[in-house]
Parts: sequence; C-alpha cells; structure tokens
Amino acid sequence: MGVVVERVGGVAVLTVDNPPLNLYTVELHESFAVALDDVQARPPRAVLIKAGGDIVSGGVDVALFAAQRSAAEAKALFDVMIELPERIAALDCPTVFAAHGLCLTWAFEIALACDLLLAVRESRFGLVENVIGLTPTMGGTQRLAARAGVARAKEMVLTGDKYDADTLYSWNVVNEVFPEAGFADAALSYTTLLADGPTRAHAATKAILRHFEAGGVPQATAHTTATAAALYDTADLREGVRSFLADGPGRATFTGN
Amino acid sequence: MGVVVERVGGVAVLTVDNPPLNLYTVELHESFAVALDDVQARPPRAVLIKAGGDIVSGGVDVALFAAQRSAAEAKALFDVMIELPERIAALDCPTVFAAHGLCLTWAFEIALACDLLLAVRESRFGLVENVIGLTPTMGGTQRLAARAGVARAKEMVLTGDKYDADTLYSWNVVNEVFPEAGFADAALSYTTLLADGPTRAHAATKAILRHFEAGGVPQATAHTTATAAALYDTADLREGVRSFLADGPGRATFTGN
Amino acid sequence: MGVVVERVGGVAVLTVDNPPLNLYTVELHESFAVALDDVQARPPRAVLIKAGGDIVSGGVDVALFAAQRSAAEAKALFDVMIELPERIAALDCPTVFAAHGLCLTWAFEIALACDLLLAVRESRFGLVENVIGLTPTMGGTQRLAARAGVARAKEMVLTGDKYDADTLYSWNVVNEVFPEAGFADAALSYTTLLADGPTRAHAATKAILRHFEAGGVPQATAHTTATAAALYDTADLREGVRSFLADGPGRATFTGN
Amino acid sequence: MGVVVERVGGVAVLTVDNPPLNLYTVELHESFAVALDDVQARPPRAVLIKAGGDIVSGGVDVALFAAQRSAAEAKALFDVMIELPERIAALDCPTVFAAHGLCLTWAFEIALACDLLLAVRESRFGLVENVIGLTPTMGGTQRLAARAGVARAKEMVLTGDKYDADTLYSWNVVNEVFPEAGFADAALSYTTLLADGPTRAHAATKAILRHFEAGGVPQATAHTTATAAALYDTADLREGVRSFLADGPGRATFTGN
Amino acid sequence: MGVVVERVGGVAVLTVDNPPLNLYTVELHESFAVALDDVQARPPRAVLIKAGGDIVSGGVDVALFAAQRSAAEAKALFDVMIELPERIAALDCPTVFAAHGLCLTWAFEIALACDLLLAVRESRFGLVENVIGLTPTMGGTQRLAARAGVARAKEMVLTGDKYDADTLYSWNVVNEVFPEAGFADAALSYTTLLADGPTRAHAATKAILRHFEAGGVPQATAHTTATAAALYDTADLREGVRSFLADGPGRATFTGN
Amino acid sequence: MGVVVERVGGVAVLTVDNPPLNLYTVELHESFAVALDDVQARPPRAVLIKAGGDIVSGGVDVALFAAQRSAAEAKALFDVMIELPERIAALDCPTVFAAHGLCLTWAFEIALACDLLLAVRESRFGLVENVIGLTPTMGGTQRLAARAGVARAKEMVLTGDKYDADTLYSWNVVNEVFPEAGFADAALSYTTLLADGPTRAHAATKAILRHFEAGGVPQATAHTTATAAALYDTADLREGVRSFLADGPGRATFTGN
Repeated sequence: MGVVVERVGGVAVLTVDNPPLNLYTVELHESFAVALDDVQARPPRAVLIKAGGDIVSGGVDVALFAAQRSAAEAKALFDVMIELPERIAALDCPTVFAAHGLCLTWAFEIALACDLLLAVRESRFGLVENVIGLTPTMGGTQRLAARAGVARAKEMVLTGDKYDADTLYSWNVVNEVFPEAGFADAALSYTTLLADGPTRAHAATKAILRHFEAGGVPQATAHTTATAAALYDTADLREGVRSFLADGPGRATFTGN
Repeated sequence: MGVVVERVGGVAVLTVDNPPLNLYTVELHESFAVALDDVQARPPRAVLIKAGGDIVSGGVDVALFAAQRSAAEAKALFDVMIELPERIAALDCPTVFAAHGLCLTWAFEIALACDLLLAVRESRFGLVENVIGLTPTMGGTQRLAARAGVARAKEMVLTGDKYDADTLYSWNVVNEVFPEAGFADAALSYTTLLADGPTRAHAATKAILRHFEAGGVPQATAHTTATAAALYDTADLREGVRSFLADGPGRATFTGN
Repeated sequence: MGVVVERVGGVAVLTVDNPPLNLYTVELHESFAVALDDVQARPPRAVLIKAGGDIVSGGVDVALFAAQRSAAEAKALFDVMIELPERIAALDCPTVFAAHGLCLTWAFEIALACDLLLAVRESRFGLVENVIGLTPTMGGTQRLAARAGVARAKEMVLTGDKYDADTLYSWNVVNEVFPEAGFADAALSYTTLLADGPTRAHAATKAILRHFEAGGVPQATAHTTATAAALYDTADLREGVRSFLADGPGRATFTGN
Repeated sequence: MGVVVERVGGVAVLTVDNPPLNLYTVELHESFAVALDDVQARPPRAVLIKAGGDIVSGGVDVALFAAQRSAAEAKALFDVMIELPERIAALDCPTVFAAHGLCLTWAFEIALACDLLLAVRESRFGLVENVIGLTPTMGGTQRLAARAGVARAKEMVLTGDKYDADTLYSWNVVNEVFPEAGFADAALSYTTLLADGPTRAHAATKAILRHFEAGGVPQATAHTTATAAALYDTADLREGVRSFLADGPGRATFTGN
Repeated sequence: MGVVVERVGGVAVLTVDNPPLNLYTVELHESFAVALDDVQARPPRAVLIKAGGDIVSGGVDVALFAAQRSAAEAKALFDVMIELPERIAALDCPTVFAAHGLCLTWAFEIALACDLLLAVRESRFGLVENVIGLTPTMGGTQRLAARAGVARAKEMVLTGDKYDADTLYSWNVVNEVFPEAGFADAALSYTTLLADGPTRAHAATKAILRHFEAGGVPQATAHTTATAAALYDTADLREGVRSFLADGPGRATFTGN
Repeated sequence: MGVVVERVGGVAVLTVDNPPLNLYTVELHESFAVALDDVQARPPRAVLIKAGGDIVSGGVDVALFAAQRSAAEAKALFDVMIELPERIAALDCPTVFAAHGLCLTWAFEIALACDLLLAVRESRFGLVENVIGLTPTMGGTQRLAARAGVARAKEMVLTGDKYDADTLYSWNVVNEVFPEAGFADAALSYTTLLADGPTRAHAATKAILRHFEAGGVPQATAHTTATAAALYDTADLREGVRSFLADGPGRATFTGN
C-alpha cells in the first residue's frame, strides 16, 4: 500500500496502490513523497507513474478536507499537496503517466504534471472539485490550459464534467490512446523507449519548454542556443553524431551521460 | 432595442437587439455598458449573452469607423470599445455566450471574452476587419490565440475567412455545438447549471486562469494554494464538504456565498 | 543551388534548392541569409517559402555538427542558425511556408517561424534531433508549443516521431492540407490573396500576437488600441472604409500603404 | 412502470421506466408492445423514445435468458424480442432515440432501429452480449454496420467494449451530441421540428432508404421517381410549393396530409 | 448560358452557367443532356463538373415543380431529371465534381453521382426538398447513404439542414477540402492527374464498385478476377508493367488504351 | 522464409517473412496457403496476421504479373490469388491484422479480409495497382467500400495515394492506432482477449454480418434469431449465463465450445 517504486531498466515505475479507490490521504502523500525522494536520490532515465486496481483514483479523501479548520490550515495542506506535481514537473528526465481507468482530481493533476499522458480508451478524467465548492489545488487548471487552451480549461473546471480519453486526445491533453488489452506492457515499452534516448538532450528540451511556460516564445528562445550547445559536453551527443555518420540514423546507443 | 437584461434565477441574461443586423453603434455600446452596470450593481451567479433576430451580428456599423478623422480619434473610440470585453472578462462569475447564427467582429470578440462559447451548428464566425484595412480592436486576436494557438489566430485574422461551429469546436474555441432546435432553452439550462454551482469557487478558478493568461504556469501556480484556501471562508465549501460526506457527491445546494 | 528569390506580383517566393536532400549547410545558410537581405531591402507584401526536389528537407548535414569541437563553437554556430527563423518571424508581412514532402528539423523550424503552414497530405514533419543526442536549436520546440500546446511539443521532440499533415492539422500546426496535384499553384494563389490584402493591417495583427507570445493576453491587450488606431494613417484603411460604404464588402483594392 | 406514451403536439413520446436499471423483462416487452400498438392505432407525426432514471438501460435481465431451456425456446423468445425494433423500423414517421446515459444491448438495438440517435456527451453504448456467450439478437449488429461500416460493427460486438457518444458521432452512429443540461427539452424540440415537417415526404425518404438497405443503390433508384411523384397527391407538397413561391423557403405550415 | 463543355487535355470540363443562381430548369436540363451527349460521343479520360458564378446552385426552379399538375406528370418529369445522374454514374472514366459554394438539391445529387467530390472550405450542401414537402428525386438520398451510412442520410434529408465541407469530409462524402484561393486550378490539376492514369483500369475499378453497390461484397468479388484480367488486353497494363520493371514505379505514360 | 504459423494459447499467429520487402510471389502464396491449411486443420480461437522486417509489404513482385501472357493466364493467376482473402474471410473465429509499417496492395487486401485491423501510427496503406495499369485483384476495393463507403474506396483506388493510420482510423478502416513501441505485444494481447471470448458466439456475429454484406439489413435480420438461438447448444453460453448470475459480468471462462 502506498506508492511502490520499481526499477525496470532505466525506468523508475511508480505505482499508486491505496485500495479500493486510490484516494489521496496524508499517508498516501507521504508514501508518494518518499517515492520521489528515491527517484531524486538515484535519478532514472525516465519515470512511469500508474495505479493499481480498477481505477486510477476516485480523488481526494474528502475527510481530509473536512479536517481543515480554517483557510490558514487549508493553505498549509495545499502547500504540501502541490509539492508532488511541482517536484514531478521539475524532474529532468521524461515522465509518463499511464491512466487505465477513471482518474479524478489530484491524480489527474499529477498526470498533467508529467510530460506525456497515455490512456486506455475507456478511461475518464475530471477535475470535479466544484462538487465540494473548491477549485483544483495542485496546478491542474493551468497545466490543462497550457495543453488545451483556456476555453477548455474553464469548461472542464467550471462544469466539473468528466471527459473520456478520445476527447482529451483531440484536445492535445492525452498523447496516446490505447485499447485496454496489453496496456501495462505498452506503457512500459513506450517509456523504455524514452529512457533509452539521449537523457540530457531530453532535459534540455524540458528546460526550454519550462522557459516557454513562464515567459512565452521570447524567453524560451533566449535560452535555446546555450541550452542546446551545452549538450556538446555530453557523451551521448558525441556518440549520436559519430553513429549517424558511420551507420545512419537510429543506430546509436545512448547512456544518458 | 439595445441590450436587454433579464434575471432568470441566478442568471443575468443579456440580449443584444439592434435590428436588422445587430450592428455595433454608439447607441448599442451605451446600452451594453448600462447592461454591464446593472450586472455589476447586482452581481448574478452567471451571465448569458445572446442576440435576437436571425443572426448574432453583421459586425460594426462601418459609418462609425468612417466618422473618425484621425488616429487619435480612432484611438479614443477603440479605448471605449475595448471596455466591453475587458469588463466582461473581469467578471467573477461564469459567463456564457450563445451564438445562434453569423457572428462577426465585435460580437465574436465579446464571445471570446466570455468563459464559454455555445453555438448552433449552422453559426459562423469571423474577424473580418481586414476587408476595411483594419485589425480587430477589442482583443479578439489574442483571446483566439489563448484558445487555439497562434497559428489559427493568424490564419483567421489574416485571411478574414469565416469558420463554422464544428471547425471552431475542433480548435477548442467553441465549447459545445448544438442543433438549432431548442438552442435557446439549452443555452439557458447550461448557464443555469453553472449559476447553481459554487460561485466563489468559480471565481477562484477564473482568477487562477487570469494569472495563467498573464504569466503562464508559474504565475498561476504561485497563486493557486492561497486562492483555493480562501474558499474555506465560504459557506459553499463548508456545505459542499458536509453534503459530500453525508450524502455523496452532487447533492449539495450552493448559495454563492 | 541555394535559396532563389523570385517576385511574383507582391509575393517574394523563396525556393530552397540544395539537391538531393536540401540539407542545411553553411553554404545554404549563407544563401538563405542573402535571400532574406533581398526581402528586407525591398519589402514584399507577402513571403512564400518552399523547396525544390522530392522532399522539403532531410534535415541538417550532420557533418556540420561533427565539425564543432566544443560547446562554445556549437553555441556560435547555433547563434547563427537561429537568425534565420528569428529574421523571418520579425518580418511585418504575412509569411507562408508550403511543404510538399518530408520536412525535418531546421526546415520545420523555419516553417514554424512563418505565420501559416500549408502542406500536401503526404508530407511528414519531424524534429528528430534526438537521434544525434541533440534538441532543436532554432526555436521550433517553443513555436510548436505556441501552436499545439506543451504536451504535443514534448511528445514530438522527446519521441522524435514523424507526423503527417492531417495529424498536424488537427493539432492546429498545419493550417491547410492539400492534395499533391496543383499544390504549387494553390500555395501561390493562397499567398497572393494575403499579399493583396491590407499589408499594414496585417503587420498590426502580427505585432499584437508578438506581444501575446511574449506576455500573454494582458500584454497584447495593452497594445491593441494604439496599434489598431495607427492604421488610420494608412491609405488602405481609408480606401477600405470608403469602398465598403460605397460598394459593400470585399471590393476594395489595397496597395499596402 | 413499463413504457409510458405521451402525446406532445404531433410527437408520441415513449418513456421506458423499469427502475432501477431499465432491464428488459417479459413485462417490459409487453408494455413496449402495447405502446407501439398505441402509436400504430393513432399515428403521430414523429416518435421520441427515451428512458427515465439515471441510465437508459443496463441490458436484458439475464434471468430471462437463463429461463430458456433449449435453442428452440430461445428462438421463440428472440422472435418475439426482435419484433420491437422491426416494428419501430417499419414506422412511416421520423423516429428519434434520446440517450441520456449508459445504453446497453436491447436498448441500443432499439436506438439503432430509430432513424436518428441523439445522445448526451457522457452517455455510453455497448453490445455486450459476448459476456454471456451470446450475440446481439435484435438486429443491432447489422444496423450498426449500415451506419458505420462492417469493421466498426465487428469491433464493437467482438470486443464487447463500450463507446462514448463522441466516438459514435465520429462513426456516424450518433447524430447529435448534447451537454447534459437541458437535454430532455432539446430532444423534444428536435423531434417536434421533424414532426412539424412534411410527414408523407419523410415517409417517402424512409421508403427509399429501406430499399437501399435491402438492395443497394440500384434498388433504391428503381423506386425513387414513383415514390417521390406520389407526393403530388399530398396537401403538404401543394402547400409547400405554393408557400415557397409566395413567401420564400421555410414559411410553409405542414399538416402531415 | 447552360452547360458548357471544354476539353483540357484528356479532361472534359462541364461548367453549369445559369445566372444568377444556377437553378435547374428545363432549358438547363436540355443543355446538360447535350453536354453529356458530347461526352459520350467523344469519351474523355476524365470529367470535371463545376459551376460558374458565386454559388454552385440554389436548387431547382420551384416554378417547374409548380407546373406539374398530377403525380403522373411529376413522375414523367422526375424520370427525365434522374437521367442526368444516372448517365454520369454510368460513365466509364473518373468523374470529379468541384463545389466552390452553396450546392443545393439537384446539384448536390449530381455531385453525389460523380466519383469524387472536391469542395472549398466555405461551400455548403443540402438536400432541402423537405421545404416544399418533397423528397430528393435524383438518387441523392441513397448515394449519400452509400458514402456516409444510413443514419447520416436520414439526418440530412429529414432535417433539411445544410452542412459544410469539413463536416461532409468527416462523413466521407467530400473527398478533399480546399481553400478558396486557387480552387479552380487545383480541381483541374486533380482531375488531370486522374485523366493521365490508366483509363481502362479506372473503368474496371468503377465496374467492381457498381457490383458492390448493387449486391454487396459477394457480387463484387464474383466479378473481380475476370474484370481485372481483361486489363491484360490493354496497352496501358503492358506499358505499366514494362515501365515498372525498367524504371521503377510512377514513370509510365498511359494512353487510355 | 514464407508464412510461419505459431500457436500462442488459442491464437494462431501467422507471420509473413519474405525479405527484404515481403513481396507477393508464387512461393509466398504457397506458403500462405499451407499456413491456412494448418489453421483450418486445427482451428484456433483467433488468428493474428502480421509481417516481419521493416515494412508489411511493398506489394506484389511485378515480375509475376509480367509473366502472364494473356488475359486468360492472368485470370487463372488472379483466381488463385483471391483464394487467400476469401479463405481468411470465411474463417469462423476472429481474425486480426497487425500492420507495423508500409502495407501495399495484396497485403492490404489481406488486412481488409480480416475482421479487425490494428496499425502503428507511422504505418501507411495503399492500393497502388494503378501504377501498372491494373485494379486490385483480391477484393480490397469492395471490402474498403464496406468499411468506409464508396467515395473513399474510389478515391483510394483511382488516385493510388497512400494513407496513414490516423486517416484510415477516421474512415473506420483501421480499428485501433498504436505507438510503435510495444506494438507486437499489444497486438497479441488484443487478439488473445478475442481468443478467450465465446468463440461460437463470435462465429455467429460473423455469420450475421456475412449476410449483411451480401443482402443488406433484411437478409441479416432474416437469419439473426436462429443464428443466435443456436448458441443455446454451446457450453459457453450456459457457462456465461451461469457465471453472470452467480458472479456478475466478466467473470466467465470460455472454452470455445
């Protein structure tokens, strides 16, 4: 129970397991934080986050919200909660979320903090905080807007509707839609491919887009050439260029260094 | 004639009525401004903006543009015009625009300043200022880009083409497409559902996205936890949490306080 | 060989011709820079960029990357390379890129620096720098995000996959998809229509969106009314208004002044 | 309980009400058959079929299948069951099915026997007979193929997956997708518009497509001119032509005669 | 005025020109029939049908329908009208319809009788016979069903709604959507490419699909091998095979023999 | 080399392996026929057909076509060739085709003879017989029309264009699109799920759709109840019903008997 970390090749696989509904609780948070400590202590070349059981998550255990007695207490709780997506978004390596079923509130906000979102066709997603008179607390609203534009972000949060994987694919929120059969294997294969890539070049790509998310195209452009040029100090770029010239594209083996 | 305000439950319904083509004129502007005064004086829990007649609007009465004798005069006019969308965008409650037919220039810019855009399948939209050698003056260009990305915003304004509801739905500009039959009822029902929601939580959602529109994901994130925590001072959050724990999701009645 | 500039009416047509694969080399860069000098020296009313041969481009000649001996040298190279898209993005007139086949790395980054992207259905696009352990160096990553959102930008760069025109159309990256037959004529007709429009109004539209790309909706809105009002000093606005009132919409002839 | 018939203007509204899951039982069948007797005894100008409760239907009460002791008994049951969709498909007036939630097996087969299918975005559809080792017994498989082609019909029945409204809209199976709010009113308005149309012309359209479903384009074409010409014996055509010439299109009032 | 035939290479271009609205009249019919006589007398290698003026057609001159005094007279008229699409559908060579604007009733039925339908993005299509209490008389209903399935065919004819090019593209009714600029050239280039193909092989393809439209997959399959084998008696197949083996694919020049 | 058959659980996996391009030759045909003999001799519960190497197939070895000296000889060859898809289409169990790359002519015709078509996003499909002056000889044209309608079938065969997986998904020809990573595993998992289903119910579904393909909805309906009722003689239906009533849906284990 909690969040289990496994290492499969270069991939750190984090599995959320808090039956029956994978609700967010203080205990689950702490387990998730420990898992991220592990990831940061021994950096993998890609991270895959998924959940056990029939659904991804039914949301936050509302008893936790009920236990906060003031806005100040709530602020303290929310400041802790938001650390999870912020830490994930700050990772240098590619991060993938695999959703195999219903994925509500905090879990969807974690998913949006990952780089790529893979989903089973029958999965469904919602930011349904409006049912308790709240708004998403972990940054999901703005990350949704950064993918799908502000009109869809407003729609999803204001209506509290749930949307299926195909719809979110057409919104550019879900990256790939899979049939249910074989999804776990497919998600791991997909992430492994990223893990086998040039890890520091992937970090550079993420750094440039972080600038874009903060200051738009000009800020990203201001950092592009230096960020890219620094890759000349990596073994992977040297091997990539050598392999390309010797054997053609796609034959290089990268080590992440 | 002008803009009529009706109150239907918690919804303020604004109907533009300037037959035959609902062109923008000085008189219509003044009537619209008075309607917004009314909305601000007695805040509703949601706003629905629509138009009477066969179309939403044929655009601005070009005689108005012809009457400006200098860039300075034009600037003064444009500064007044842009107040309408800016005031609408600044409203705290959910705002919905319902387009039942052709919707050109100023009216589409008003629609883009609303949170959500509902449209009849046969409606069409255009920012056709290029036909008189102008560019949109009321912020529609950038609000289109915030929904659909810069390539579509450039396309629509530079070509001056008109686009139908289905296309703008696929661009994430139109939120829902309806058949013509029953559209007025459907739009009001849709807005009423939003008005019956947790009004201050909706205001929080909008505040977070306003930060996103100005400073991207980091600025929005910097304000998220405090904005959300402040909802602990609302009756709606307390009722929402209580109702959820007692009766399950979706049974709470919100008052907007 | 190199980049040829032709003038067709008000359109400057730039054709990249570096057989067999239109790879980016130092020589091609210099020829491209000269072509842009020509464009800037005698400003056209629209620019069309395309390529000769079977494909648009196979990417950068990797020997060029191999020749850089340090991060500092690479930085110097990248600073030169990025001038091409930056100069194109800074042009005041509408810019159109026409892709008739495979379009990789630098060429796709040039395309993303143009306002509008037209493509043959069978064309394919990729930012495949990951195969040599690099990240895109010419701003394509952030310009892709500005069109399609950050999730698609990450997907395309991290996976290094190639995407066809229909997919990028659904992402709002490609503006129009054409059949192969007659594409060259169609692209020129499309660009000519833009060239025949109110050139300074088009410049105003682009200026407003440049503010949007840098500082979001508020920064763009802060500049909208002044930028639009300045068009009252153009002959095209005066003629556009006069023609509209005399003859109805779409009959004006614009001169770009 | 059972199927209730209401008359709203020219529309016969049939509401399936067999709480909690609107399962198909012998009693529900008999009530449905009586409702169709009513429709046939006093022909409406359009039929709207919908369901009460939270979902459309969870399927057939499996106890009914368990009660059949042999293939012969099952055949007798299936021959009775299939009468419902066959009778609906044989009606001359337009028939509309409105799905507001999960819609499984027999209920989806009824929906496919109607002319048009309206659905709430969150509704889902399945032909899940495979879970008990059966195949759809009421013609849904072939009617699905007549809308979406054989590959989608095979996919849906062989996998037993459930599909949402947007997906079936893209398959041309669902005709219109609505938000949940106001759906009941919208569906009735939509059907009323059809009921107010030229009822005998609508019957002619359906007759021609019935020929198409049996013998393809040539068989339909063989009956087209005679079927259309017979409408000259209707009051509605005479009124439609008169009204068009006198007042322009869309002003005629039809009586169904 | 009427239907003009031009020969452009192997293409017979038929232009409908009956200003202002290209309404179907007896005179237009006769001119169209003469044009088809010309096509049949001197078979082209492809046919392109288009219209002059601002729209494709506003439909049938309703005065013509008003002039029919009985069902028998109407039947006689309809039997003549339906000859146009039937003759076009019976042509052996590829037939292309290019729609540059609004395309109603008879003109859309002609379009559906052609093999391929190209359309400008702003064009719209309707089978609006319901406004006069009629049903389409020229086979459009069933040809629509053969492209888009029966549910879409019923929807379009029963509602009488108009649909834009993008929607009909998603229904598989429109084959390609073009921007307005350069459409005439693009349509001719597209058709010329078909005309330059192996004309008798194209006739074989059409013959097989004619069997499919009449008797489904088995009837088509029963005729496939003999129809294909007969092409061994054509010069084009011999040249195609020879050229492929000598020069690779796509280098053959076909003569249509 | 040739077609290899493996048994994986209830699935017969057929792998086409004729390097480098998996061209169709007499030898490959014979190997494929032997593989189908094996399948028929020991019926599996599902069939998965795929190919080895970088692409699915480059088409038919044109030397084979060149070797036919007359229409009569060609007819004899085509009659042999068409046996492959006809035998596959006649199998009672579910058949799945997995395309991992370019898939031309005969291989795409085989794919269309399977029930379901899975494809990697980067795969592409074509019926390019027009380049040698031929038409598809193995029934692909009509099977394409049975999935996507006649307009798309004509388009694909007359133009000879190649279409990617996403486009054919939107045409309802490809059932599922997968990323490249993990595709082989995903396709086998998908097929295994079908193999584990009620095999005789699946055969009944296929029989009903075979009637639909031959004689439309009425012919399929005439056989539905008897075909379904015959399943009462299967162990799977009895177990399915028992398990459903005892344990709820989805817990039954089927044996195919």
